[in-house]
Amino acid sequence: MRDLRKSGKLEEEAGEHLNKTLEIRQLDVTSEDSVKKCLAALPGQTVDILVNNAGIGHIGPLESHSMDDMRKIFETNFFGVVYLVKELLPSMKKRGSGHIVVISSVLGLQGIVFNDVYAASKFAIEGFCESLAVQLLNFNIFISMIEPGPVNTEFEMKLMEEVSKSDFPGADAETIRYFKEIYVPAAHEIFVTLGQTPDAVAKATVKVIGMTQPVFRHQTNPLYTPLTAMKYADNTGNLSVRSYYNLLFNYGSIFHFSLNLLKCITCNCFRRRVMPV
Amino acid sequence: MRDLRKSGKLEEEAGEHLNKTLEIRQLDVTSEDSVKKCLAALPGQTVDILVNNAGIGHIGPLESHSMDDMRKIFETNFFGVVYLVKELLPSMKKRGSGHIVVISSVLGLQGIVFNDVYAASKFAIEGFCESLAVQLLNFNIFISMIEPGPVNTEFEMKLMEEVSKSDFPGADAETIRYFKEIYVPAAHEIFVTLGQTPDAVAKATVKVIGMTQPVFRHQTNPLYTPLTAMKYADNTGNLSVRSYYNLLFNYGSIFHFSLNLLKCITCNCFRRRVMPV
Repeated sequence: MRDLRKSGKLEEEAGEHLNKTLEIRQLDVTSEDSVKKCLAALPGQTVDILVNNAGIGHIGPLESHSMDDMRKIFETNFFGVVYLVKELLPSMKKRGSGHIVVISSVLGLQGIVFNDVYAASKFAIEGFCESLAVQLLNFNIFISMIEPGPVNTEFEMKLMEEVSKSDFPGADAETIRYFKEIYVPAAHEIFVTLGQTPDAVAKATVKVIGMTQPVFRHQTNPLYTPLTAMKYADNTGNLSVRSYYNLLFNYGSIFHFSLNLLKCITCNCFRRRVMPV
Repeated sequence: MRDLRKSGKLEEEAGEHLNKTLEIRQLDVTSEDSVKKCLAALPGQTVDILVNNAGIGHIGPLESHSMDDMRKIFETNFFGVVYLVKELLPSMKKRGSGHIVVISSVLGLQGIVFNDVYAASKFAIEGFCESLAVQLLNFNIFISMIEPGPVNTEFEMKLMEEVSKSDFPGADAETIRYFKEIYVPAAHEIFVTLGQTPDAVAKATVKVIGMTQPVFRHQTNPLYTPLTAMKYADNTGNLSVRSYYNLLFNYGSIFHFSLNLLKCITCNCFRRRVMPV
């Protein structure tokens, strides 16, 4: 954890496992010093499975964000992972084993309006890992990207609440209106309709870690998959850009209906029974 | 240009058009001050079409790269574009027109071994633009990503030559061997077999700029497209990671043959004649 004073909840959840199979340590992935100290203090200085979970969210009109704020998103969501991987690779390569897991996002596969910089940081880590994974197969080291869709956490709700109150200095009135009156309610709808629990994401991650040949990618939310598949169906990218545009800005009134339709068509609760002839 | 002392070749190419339809100006996209000065000096301070072409390459084993070197790649390839777009958006939105063109790369769609950080920077700009493009349709502003494959330039050849001589401090002997003895010759082969001229990329860019409804994505090299399509065929990502691995590390001896086969099967020089019945 970055801030050990916030460890209370986690300690409580860990119960009797605390300091047996779970130890909580201080780590700020944006500080090379903190990463070095944390790794040096580990028993045998070895890490078998590295799960990169640290990440910060960022939404709103681009014009209202300072360049330094954007760099901060990249320091945690991208460079933090890169630095940890870079520090651990030599020992993993020497041992000829290791598993690097990255909690990425569906926004690493498909951009979403008003998530420009957050999506960019997740795309970046996807491109980095996709390149590295090929080389690492030579050393029996696997990389897996866990790609959750919307996850209902306190963190998400707070972020949405905060931004809906902000003034967004630098952005024009029309853009702010699109953000507050169209994006924020639509995002809320998506979280309510398609959202997963953090527990479901954790379980999916544990499953991937347990595989003898871990998959490179795993989308945890099958309800969201059709939304990421559109870009692959059209090389020009126009299908997905225009579909998202129409869904949000032209047919906003049927947005609720569309999401529920998506939920129904991707569901398999009414499996057709095949009768023996 | 970042360095106006290097403008000789361009001035020569421009010939009689120089200072009529082509003006050369100083611009360093990594400096906010330089961007502001350049934009303020433009007639009417307006830009109709912004073509983001500045970019720097970066290859080699991750372990040998400093974090600051990696941040520099992002400053030019990602944050430089973001800053220019952010500065120009208010006026484009006010006018209700504009076209933002980004010279991205096929490495923004599919990572390549030993191109970890470069691919990440191109993925980042793809994710950023994919998110932004949806919002900008409201303002009649288009974004287009030009995605060249290998391009035969002096720049590329110099980069390859330099890195093949480097020692890569921090990387282990096996990784350096993979890089120098497998990656570098394979990359050379790819450039020779599939490489385009910079002129072909420029022509493709002009074509996209001329479209009344510009496409969001345009891969300039159809020979390379099958290599980016593999990841879309398998959601787990294993198909592309393993295919690249096998092509490079297991079947290196037939790499030359594979590339030529790819060239043949994607070519349409032997179109079958359909005879009228």
